[in-house]
Amino acid sequence: MGVSGSGKTFLGKQLAQVISKPFYDADDFHSEASKIKMKSGHALNDMDRLPWLHTLADNINKWSRNGGAILACSALKEDYRKKLSKDNNHITWIVLNGTFKIIQSRLKERHDHFFNPELLKSQFDILELPNYGIHLNINHPIEVLIQSVLTKKTIDNQASIGVIGMGVMGQGIAINCCKNGFETAVYNRFIKGEKTVVFNFLSKHPNIKNLHGFIDLLSFIRALKRPRKIWLMIKSGEAIDTLLDEILPLLDENDVIIDGGNSHYKDTQRRERALKKHRVNYVGCGVSGGEIGAREGASLMFGGSKEAYNILTPILNAISAKDNSGKPCQLFLGADGAGHFVKMVHNGIEYAEMQLLAELYAVLSNQMDYDEMASVFEKWNQGSEGSYLLEITSKILKKKEGSEYLLDVILDNAKTKGTGIWSTQSSLSLGVVNTMMSSAIFARYISGMKEQREFLVKRKPPSEATKFFDLNTLKDAYRFARIINHIQGFNLIQAASQKYHWNFNPKEIARIWTKGCIIRSNLMEELISYFAHDKSLFKNDTLMETLTKTEPQIAALLHHAIDQKVALDSFSSAYNYWISMCTKRLPANLIQAQRDFFGAHTYQRIDKHVDTNFHTKWY
Amino acid sequence: MGVSGSGKTFLGKQLAQVISKPFYDADDFHSEASKIKMKSGHALNDMDRLPWLHTLADNINKWSRNGGAILACSALKEDYRKKLSKDNNHITWIVLNGTFKIIQSRLKERHDHFFNPELLKSQFDILELPNYGIHLNINHPIEVLIQSVLTKKTIDNQASIGVIGMGVMGQGIAINCCKNGFETAVYNRFIKGEKTVVFNFLSKHPNIKNLHGFIDLLSFIRALKRPRKIWLMIKSGEAIDTLLDEILPLLDENDVIIDGGNSHYKDTQRRERALKKHRVNYVGCGVSGGEIGAREGASLMFGGSKEAYNILTPILNAISAKDNSGKPCQLFLGADGAGHFVKMVHNGIEYAEMQLLAELYAVLSNQMDYDEMASVFEKWNQGSEGSYLLEITSKILKKKEGSEYLLDVILDNAKTKGTGIWSTQSSLSLGVVNTMMSSAIFARYISGMKEQREFLVKRKPPSEATKFFDLNTLKDAYRFARIINHIQGFNLIQAASQKYHWNFNPKEIARIWTKGCIIRSNLMEELISYFAHDKSLFKNDTLMETLTKTEPQIAALLHHAIDQKVALDSFSSAYNYWISMCTKRLPANLIQAQRDFFGAHTYQRIDKHVDTNFHTKWY
Repeated sequence: MGVSGSGKTFLGKQLAQVISKPFYDADDFHSEASKIKMKSGHALNDMDRLPWLHTLADNINKWSRNGGAILACSALKEDYRKKLSKDNNHITWIVLNGTFKIIQSRLKERHDHFFNPELLKSQFDILELPNYGIHLNINHPIEVLIQSVLTKKTIDNQASIGVIGMGVMGQGIAINCCKNGFETAVYNRFIKGEKTVVFNFLSKHPNIKNLHGFIDLLSFIRALKRPRKIWLMIKSGEAIDTLLDEILPLLDENDVIIDGGNSHYKDTQRRERALKKHRVNYVGCGVSGGEIGAREGASLMFGGSKEAYNILTPILNAISAKDNSGKPCQLFLGADGAGHFVKMVHNGIEYAEMQLLAELYAVLSNQMDYDEMASVFEKWNQGSEGSYLLEITSKILKKKEGSEYLLDVILDNAKTKGTGIWSTQSSLSLGVVNTMMSSAIFARYISGMKEQREFLVKRKPPSEATKFFDLNTLKDAYRFARIINHIQGFNLIQAASQKYHWNFNPKEIARIWTKGCIIRSNLMEELISYFAHDKSLFKNDTLMETLTKTEPQIAALLHHAIDQKVALDSFSSAYNYWISMCTKRLPANLIQAQRDFFGAHTYQRIDKHVDTNFHTKWY
Repeated sequence: MGVSGSGKTFLGKQLAQVISKPFYDADDFHSEASKIKMKSGHALNDMDRLPWLHTLADNINKWSRNGGAILACSALKEDYRKKLSKDNNHITWIVLNGTFKIIQSRLKERHDHFFNPELLKSQFDILELPNYGIHLNINHPIEVLIQSVLTKKTIDNQASIGVIGMGVMGQGIAINCCKNGFETAVYNRFIKGEKTVVFNFLSKHPNIKNLHGFIDLLSFIRALKRPRKIWLMIKSGEAIDTLLDEILPLLDENDVIIDGGNSHYKDTQRRERALKKHRVNYVGCGVSGGEIGAREGASLMFGGSKEAYNILTPILNAISAKDNSGKPCQLFLGADGAGHFVKMVHNGIEYAEMQLLAELYAVLSNQMDYDEMASVFEKWNQGSEGSYLLEITSKILKKKEGSEYLLDVILDNAKTKGTGIWSTQSSLSLGVVNTMMSSAIFARYISGMKEQREFLVKRKPPSEATKFFDLNTLKDAYRFARIINHIQGFNLIQAASQKYHWNFNPKEIARIWTKGCIIRSNLMEELISYFAHDKSLFKNDTLMETLTKTEPQIAALLHHAIDQKVALDSFSSAYNYWISMCTKRLPANLIQAQRDFFGAHTYQRIDKHVDTNFHTKWY
C-alpha cells in the first residue's frame, strides 16, 4: 500500500518473482467508469470505491486459498483496509513511505500511467498510515526493500559465518554450517536471473532456524559477528575482484574473507597482499568433495595467515570430512596461495585418475558389456584399487534410461575447467614432470575435436577389436599407472613447497585427501604411512617393488592397446615415465649437443663437475 | 694527462680494461725521495721531475713495442710532454679538463692518496693545456668519456640501424646489416663484466668500415637516422623493460624498436600498447637460425604495425635467408605479439623434432655404433626426411675428442628455455592439443632428475637390449611422428590466429621456415604446397595417406620399444594422437558422466543438439 507513485507495482512485481507468487494490481479491478473518471483528472469518491473494494476482498480470499499472492493497492484509509481484509486475517501489509516532494518528482517522470499527478495532493490528504505492517522507506534500493520484507527480525552481529554465492557449493557450505550449530547468513547478488536464488534456497529449508537470507550486501555484513568470517563461493576470476571492491569498504580490521572456489593460486597471492594493506585477512581455501562434500563434510585445504586459521578452526573442524581416526580433513598449508595450489594439484590428480578410468573403459568396452564391467569395477573397489571415482564409475556404467545405457547417449566430448589446465601449466613453470596430468588434459581436448575426428574416421575402416585382455593383468597395470600419477602429483606439491617456502607435509596432505574429496582412495590411505618414512615416494620400497613387479603387466596392456588401436595416452605416459626414470643414460646428451651446435648453449660433461659448462666448435 | 684529482687513474684503468691493455700510473715511477717530499706538502720542482720523466719515456717506448699501454701522468707542461714523447710519436694524449672548484671538492673526498690537496693550486698554475689530443670534460659519466676516446669521429644521424646487445645473436645481426651496406651502430651496456664487449667486437672486425661501437646510450641514439630503427638483442624479461625505461625519453615519434629476442608474446603485446602511447613503434620480431642465421640470413617473423613493417622492409629483406625461389624468409604476421607467438611455436616444433631424433638415437644405440648411425642419418638426409637438425645430428655423432666420441661424455641432462615451455602452456590456454611439444619438454625435465634416476637404476637390473629394428620401418615411423608434430604445431598457430585476429597464412609461415631457421626441412617445403590447397593439414590426402600407411610401422616401433625398455615419449604421443583422432567414440563420455555425477557439471547428448546441457540425478 501507498500513494500513487510510491512504487507499489515495481516492488510488488520484484517481490512476487523472488517468492514465486502471482502479482496483481488493484487498478486493474476498477470499473471502466472509474478509470475514465480518474483519467479525466477527478478523484474517486468512497461511493465509487465500494464495489471495487468488495471485488478485491473476494479475490484476496481466493488467492489466499491458492497459496497467496502480492497485491499492489493504494489502501490509503483504515476503512478501505478493513473492507479488503474483512474475511481474511492472513494479510501482511507492506507500507511504502515517501515524502510528497519525492513522489511528485517520480510521477513527473512517468508517461505510461493513466493517473494524473495532480491527484497526488488529495491522496496525501486522505492517507491514514497504519500502525501495523512492514513500513519501508522508498528511498532505499530495491534489494534493501525486498530484504526488509523477507527478514522478519534483524540479526545484527549474530551470525558466526556468512556465505556469499548460493550456487550448489555455496548452499552446501551454508547447510553444513547450520547443521553444525553456527548461525549462518547467506547472500546472493540481486540481479537479473539470480533474484530468486536466496528465497528459493530459504524456502527449500524451512526447518533450518539458524539460516538467514540476504539480498542486500550491507544488511548481510551487519548480520555478522566480528571478526566477520565471509566465505565466498562464487565463480573464480573477475567476479571475485568485483565483489572484493564492493565489500572491502564495509569491513573492519581482522575480518576474514575465505575464497572457497577454485581460484588460481597466483590470484590468491595477489589478493592476499592487497587486502593485507587494509588489515583484512584473505584466505584461499580449497574445497573438494563436490555437492555432497560441501554439505556433509569436505576436504579443506587452507592457505592464509595463522591468525585467520585460528579464527576459522572451529568452523573448519566442524564442516570438514573426518578421516578414519576421526580427525578433521582440514589442514593449514601455508600462507597466501598454498591452499589453492594444493587444491589445484588435487584436481590435476583427479583429471588423470578419471582419464585412466576412461582408458580402462575403452579397453574393456571391446570385450564385455556395461553390467559386466560394472561388476569388475565393483569387485576391484573392494580391494587395494578401491576409490570414490571407481565406485561412481560402476554406478554410471549401470545407469539406464529406459532400456538403454545412459552412457551410450552421452557425447564423447569432455570439458575442462581452470584447475586441470593450471596444474599442468604450473608443472611446466616449476620444471616438474607431469605427463599424467598433461595427457589427461590433452585427451579431453582431443575428444573436443569432434569435427576433424569424424572427417578422419570416415576415411579409415574401423578396426575390428576382438582380443580379450586378462583382467588381473589390467588391474596390475591400473595400479602401476595410479602410483605414477600420485608420484607426479606429490612431486609437483614438493616443488611448489620449496619454491614458495610453504613447508608442505605430504603425509598430512594425503591424510586430508582420504575422506570428503574426489580422489579419496585406498591408495591414498597407504600413502600416509609411506610418507611417514620419506617425503619422496621414490624411496618407498613397497611402491618401487610394485612398479618393478607390475612393469610387465602395463607393458602387456600397451602391446594389447597398440594391436587393438585403442589410444591409451595416460597409461603410455605412466609407462614411459617409469622406463625413463630407470634408464641410466637418456638420449638427452644428444639434445644438449644439438643446442650447443646451433645456439652455443653449452653442455655439461659426465667427467667434469656439473657446475662447469662446455662449448664445442662443432663446425 | 690532467691535474691530480682529474680522474686519470680511474679513467685509465677502465679504458685499459675495455681495450685489454696494461695500465700504469706515473706516480709509481717517482723516486722515494720525491714521494716523501710530496707527502710532506711540498711541490716537486723541475729538477726533481727530470729523472722521473726519462724513466717514463724509456718505459713508454718499451710498452709501445709490446702492443701499447695506458699511462696516467699529470704531464702538465708542454716541456714535460716533449720529454715523455722524445723517442715516440705514437702517443695519443687524452686530456682531462675540470674546474679548480670541482677537482678540489673531489680531492677532499679522497683519503687513500698521498697527494696533499693544497698542492692543487700550484698544479693549475703551471698547467699548459695542449692544443692536440682528445679533450674530455670530467663532468661526463665514465661511459661517455670512454666512448669519446673510442669514437674517432662523430656519426650523428648517419646509422640506418642500431643494434643493442652484443651477445652472439646481436653481433650476428650487426655484421649481417653491415655486410648488406647499412651503416650500423652497436651498443652494449657498460657495466661490470660487459665493459669490454663492444671494443672486443669492434677489434675482431677491423675491416668493417660501416660498423660503429657505442657504450654511451645517448651517443648511440644520436648516431641513428630518423626514424630510428633500434634492434634489441638482449635477454628477454625484465632487462627489456629496464632498457625501454632508459631509452624512451631519448626517442622521437615514429622511431621503431625491434625486440629480436625470445620474449613472451604477451609481454610484447603489453609493451606495444605502452609504447604506442608515446607514438613509438614497438615490434616483436622472432629470429630463428642461431648464430649462423643471424650473421648470414635468418628466418624473421615480424609482429607489429604495418607502418613499422614498411620502414623496416629493406633491412628485413636484406638480412633474412632466401627461400628456394630467392624470396626473403621474412613475413609480416600481424600486430603486437604475432611474430613472437609464431617464433615460440617454431621453437616448440623444434623441441619435438629434437626429441624425436633423441629417441631414434636411443633406439639405434642398442644396435649400431655412432659412425654407422651417422651414415644412416646422412642417407636419410638425402631424401624426404632431410632437415637441418638431422644433418647436424650426423655431424654430432661423428665428432670425436681424441679417440672418444664427444657425445659419450656429454651429460644426459637437457636444459630448457622459455619458448618451449611457453608453447606448451599456450596450447593448454588455447585448448589446443600439443602432446608432441609437451612430451619433448617433459622428457627434458625427466633427464634433469638425475639423482632420482640414479637411485632407481641401482635397484633395477639393466635390461639387455639386443633386438635389431628394421631401418626402413624406423624411417617410416619417424616420418609419421614428424607429420603429427607439424600438424599439432600449425594447429596451435591457427588457434592463436583466430583468438588474436592475426589472420595467419600457414603457407607463408611454412615458406619462411624453409631456410635460415632451425626447423627447415624437406617436409617443410612439402607443406607449402599442401597449405596452398587447405589450411587444415587433416584435409590433405597425401599426408593422411602417409599416416594411414605408416601406422603399422610406428606401431611396430612402439612394440619394439616396449620390449627393449626404451622410453619413446614423443613417438608414443604421435601414435596415440593419431589413433584418438581416428576413433569414432572416445571414452570421454565416461568423463562427462563422472563430472556430472560428482560436480553437476552437465553433459551433452549424441541424440540432442550440442547446445543443450543435461544433468542426471545419479544417486
